[in-house]
Amino acid sequence: MSMIKIKPALSKGTRDFLPVEVAKRQYIFDTIKNVFRKYGFEPIETPAIERLETLTGKYGEEGDKLLFKILNSGDYLTDVRQLNNTNLDPKEVTPLIAEKGLRYDLTVPLARYVVQHQDKLTFPFKRYHIGPVWRADRPQKGRYQEFYQCDADVIGSSSVFSEAELLCIYRDAFAGLQFNNYEIRINNRKVLSGLAELLNSGELFSALVIAIDKLDKIGLEKVLEELRGRGFEEKQLEVISAFLAVSGSNEAQFEQLEKLLASSEVGLAGLAELRELVEICAAQNLTLVIDTTLARGLDYYTGLIVEVKPTGVAMGSIGGGGRYENLTEIFGGKNMSGVGVSFGIERIYDVMEELGLFPDTLNQSVQVLVVSLLPEVDKFAFEQTQALRQAGVAAEFFTGNIKKQKQFNFATDKNIPFIIEIKAEDKANGLLSVKNLKNKEISQVAAKELCGFFKG
Amino acid sequence: MSMIKIKPALSKGTRDFLPVEVAKRQYIFDTIKNVFRKYGFEPIETPAIERLETLTGKYGEEGDKLLFKILNSGDYLTDVRQLNNTNLDPKEVTPLIAEKGLRYDLTVPLARYVVQHQDKLTFPFKRYHIGPVWRADRPQKGRYQEFYQCDADVIGSSSVFSEAELLCIYRDAFAGLQFNNYEIRINNRKVLSGLAELLNSGELFSALVIAIDKLDKIGLEKVLEELRGRGFEEKQLEVISAFLAVSGSNEAQFEQLEKLLASSEVGLAGLAELRELVEICAAQNLTLVIDTTLARGLDYYTGLIVEVKPTGVAMGSIGGGGRYENLTEIFGGKNMSGVGVSFGIERIYDVMEELGLFPDTLNQSVQVLVVSLLPEVDKFAFEQTQALRQAGVAAEFFTGNIKKQKQFNFATDKNIPFIIEIKAEDKANGLLSVKNLKNKEISQVAAKELCGFFKG
Repeated sequence: MSMIKIKPALSKGTRDFLPVEVAKRQYIFDTIKNVFRKYGFEPIETPAIERLETLTGKYGEEGDKLLFKILNSGDYLTDVRQLNNTNLDPKEVTPLIAEKGLRYDLTVPLARYVVQHQDKLTFPFKRYHIGPVWRADRPQKGRYQEFYQCDADVIGSSSVFSEAELLCIYRDAFAGLQFNNYEIRINNRKVLSGLAELLNSGELFSALVIAIDKLDKIGLEKVLEELRGRGFEEKQLEVISAFLAVSGSNEAQFEQLEKLLASSEVGLAGLAELRELVEICAAQNLTLVIDTTLARGLDYYTGLIVEVKPTGVAMGSIGGGGRYENLTEIFGGKNMSGVGVSFGIERIYDVMEELGLFPDTLNQSVQVLVVSLLPEVDKFAFEQTQALRQAGVAAEFFTGNIKKQKQFNFATDKNIPFIIEIKAEDKANGLLSVKNLKNKEISQVAAKELCGFFKG
Repeated sequence: MSMIKIKPALSKGTRDFLPVEVAKRQYIFDTIKNVFRKYGFEPIETPAIERLETLTGKYGEEGDKLLFKILNSGDYLTDVRQLNNTNLDPKEVTPLIAEKGLRYDLTVPLARYVVQHQDKLTFPFKRYHIGPVWRADRPQKGRYQEFYQCDADVIGSSSVFSEAELLCIYRDAFAGLQFNNYEIRINNRKVLSGLAELLNSGELFSALVIAIDKLDKIGLEKVLEELRGRGFEEKQLEVISAFLAVSGSNEAQFEQLEKLLASSEVGLAGLAELRELVEICAAQNLTLVIDTTLARGLDYYTGLIVEVKPTGVAMGSIGGGGRYENLTEIFGGKNMSGVGVSFGIERIYDVMEELGLFPDTLNQSVQVLVVSLLPEVDKFAFEQTQALRQAGVAAEFFTGNIKKQKQFNFATDKNIPFIIEIKAEDKANGLLSVKNLKNKEISQVAAKELCGFFKG
C-alpha cells in the first residue's frame, strides 16, 4: 500500500450506514419481502453495470445526462485520438470511451431480463427486486446519487386481481411496519383519455395532464390559466373545470364521472375498471381513494395508476405504480400487459424515523457480554460464551486486562442487557453471576443451565 | 421511450440471477449472517461508488488498472481541451475526467469507514459486510467483473480469542450449510519471519515467500531451483529444505519447528501464538491444520494467516484471512490491530451446487395455487387466497379462462405442491378440494379450515 495519507471522505451524494441504520433498513426490506413472498412474488437480481445501449434513451434527454458512465478499460482513447481534434465535444467523445453505465432504475433492467430469459421464466412472471440504483443528480437533503429502489411487478397478466394483489401488498407491508398514516390514491389512464376524447384536444393531451397534475400545488385557477395559455378554448375549460370539480365519496365520484364521461367509451371502461378494483379491495377491508387528478408518468402507464401518500407528515409519495403495456417491446419482446408498484423505501425510512416506528430491539444485537476477569479463567469464560452462541444466543466475549469502565461502556454502547463477569472461584464451583444491566439484579446461574436462562 | 429495438444483452462479466439462484445465494448469505450475529458482529454498508483518491494505489499497479472509473458529469472535457494535445495519453487524461470509481473490495472501504466514523463506533469494532465489488478483469469461467465478497473483521483487538472466534465462525457457518468437505489451514507470519531471520536473507524475504507459496504446485526440487536462481546459497537452501520437510501431526510439526527456530525470538513467538490458537480451538472441537507454506498476501498480514480449502473437489480456497496491523493508517487512523476472514461465497455456491447441498425447499416458494374456474367464483376464490396469505401461507391465484394445461404447467414450473380448483358449488357449500400434486391425493377441506390445513 502506498503511504501517502488520504483524508477519509465519501464521494458526494453517497452514504455509509452504521450498524443500527443497516438493521433498520433491513427491517423494512425484510418486512416487505415477507409480504412479497406470501403473494407468490420471487426475487431476481440484475447487475449494477449495464450496457449503455440498454440504458440510453429510456429516461428522456434529462435522464441520459444523469446516467453514470463507466470509462472503458485499457487504452480507451484510441478512437478519440483518431478524431485528431483538440476541441473535443462530450457528445462525440462519450460513445467512444464509455460503453457501460450504472443502472438508473430497476424497470429497464426488468424489461431486458424478461426478454432475455423468457424461455426460463414462468408467466405470469411475478418478481420483486430491491437494490441500489445510481443517478448523477445534484445531491441535496433526502436526494442521493446512490439509493435503493424496491419494485414488484406482474408481467403477462391483465387481470384486475393482479392489481388488487399489489394494493393488498401495500396494505400488508405497511401494517407489518406498524405504519398507518397513509392513503392509497388511484386513477385510471383511460379516465384521462376519456376526458381528452370529450375535449377533442388531440396533441394537447400531455399539456392537459401536466397541468392537471399540478392541481394540488397551484390550485384550480392557475391550472385553468396555464391551460388557456396552452391554447385550450373556454368551452374546453368548462369541461375540464367540471371534471376537476368531481368530489365526494368514491361512489359519489363514480356517479359524477359516469355522467361526465357518458359519451366516451374508453372513459367508461376506465371507470368500470376502477369500480371493480375498489369493490374487490373493499371486500379485503382495503379502502382506496379515487383521485382523477393523479397522472404519474403518463407516457408509460395505460390503465391503473396508483400513488401512496403519507398523511400527517409533509412528504411526497412513498409508493406508486400502475399498469403498462409495452415494457418489453423495446428489447424485441412480444407485447405483454404488466402491472407494478414501487415502495419509496428511502422515504419510508425517513417517515418511520420521524414517527419513531422502528422497534427498540433493532438497537440490540447482542444479548450478553461475558467478561473474563483473570487470564486463568479466559478459556473457561470463552467456553461459556461459545455454549451460548451454539444455543443461538448472541454473545460477546472480553478477556481480562480490560478496565471495568471500558467493559461497561462497551455493554452500554451496544445496548447489551446482560453481563457475566467470571472470577477464579466461578470456574471452581461452576456458578455464574448474571447481571441485568437495566435493573441491576444479579442472578446466580449454574454454568450448565446458562443457555436455558437466556433461551427460556 | 425511444422505439429503436435493442438486443437484450448483459455487459460482459456480469450476471442476471433467476429466482431460484437468488434463493440459493440468499440461503448462503443468511446462514453466514446468522452466525456472524451470534458472535456479536454487526452489519455495515458502504457505497458502491468511492472517490478514486480512496481506491487508487491500494491494490498495486495491476489493481489500479482493474479499477472501474466513472466519467465525471457535465462537460467533463474542459481540462482535456486545455491540454491542447491530439495525442492523448490515458495516464494523463484519466485524472482529468474521472474522480469516482467502483469499489474493488470491502477492505479499503472498511479502513476509510473506521477512520471516518471512529467517534461513533464501539471498539473492538466487529463488523461484517456482504456486498458486490467490481474489477475490470478479463471475464472467464467463474471470474466475473461484478461479484460478491463477504468479510468479517475485528478492529482494535489483539486477542487470540478474536482469532478463535473467527475460525469458529467458519466452522459454524459451514456446518449451517451442511458443508463438511473442507479444512482450515493456518500459519503465522512470524514463523516465516523467523525462518528469514535464520537465513539472514534480508531483502530476499519476499522471493523466499513467493517460492515457498508454490510448493504445492511445483514441488520441492523446483522451489529450491528457483531459490538458487534468486541468489540463495547452498547453506541457506539446507535450512529451507529442513523447514519445508516439517510434517506430521500439529504436535509433531510444533516440535520440529521449535527446534528449527530455537534461535529466533520472533519465530518462537509465532509458534506460541499458533499453539495457543490450536489449543483454544481444540477445546471447541475444531481441528486446524498447521501449514507453514501458507503465505497469502504477506505484505499485508502480520500474525495469523488462515486459508479454508475444500477437500475432494478441484477448487481453490473458499475462505481466507489473517491478522494485520496498519489497515487504517493510510487514512490517518491510529494503528489498531485487526483480524479478519473472508468467505469466498461465489465459490462456495459452486461447490454446494456441485455437491448438491442446497435444500430442495429453496425451489419451492409457493405452497398452494388457487384457481377460479368460473368468473362467478373469482371473488370467492380470491378471498380464500387472501385468507391463506394473511395466515402466512404463500399462495398464488389464477382467475378463470386459463387453460387447464397452463395452470398445471404453472404449478409444475413453480414447484407448487398443492392446487385448489374452485367451482360454483364450492362457494355454495363452503367445501374445497385440495389436491396434492405429488401423490394426486385430494382432500375435502371446509373453507373455514383451509388455513389450518396448511399451517397445521
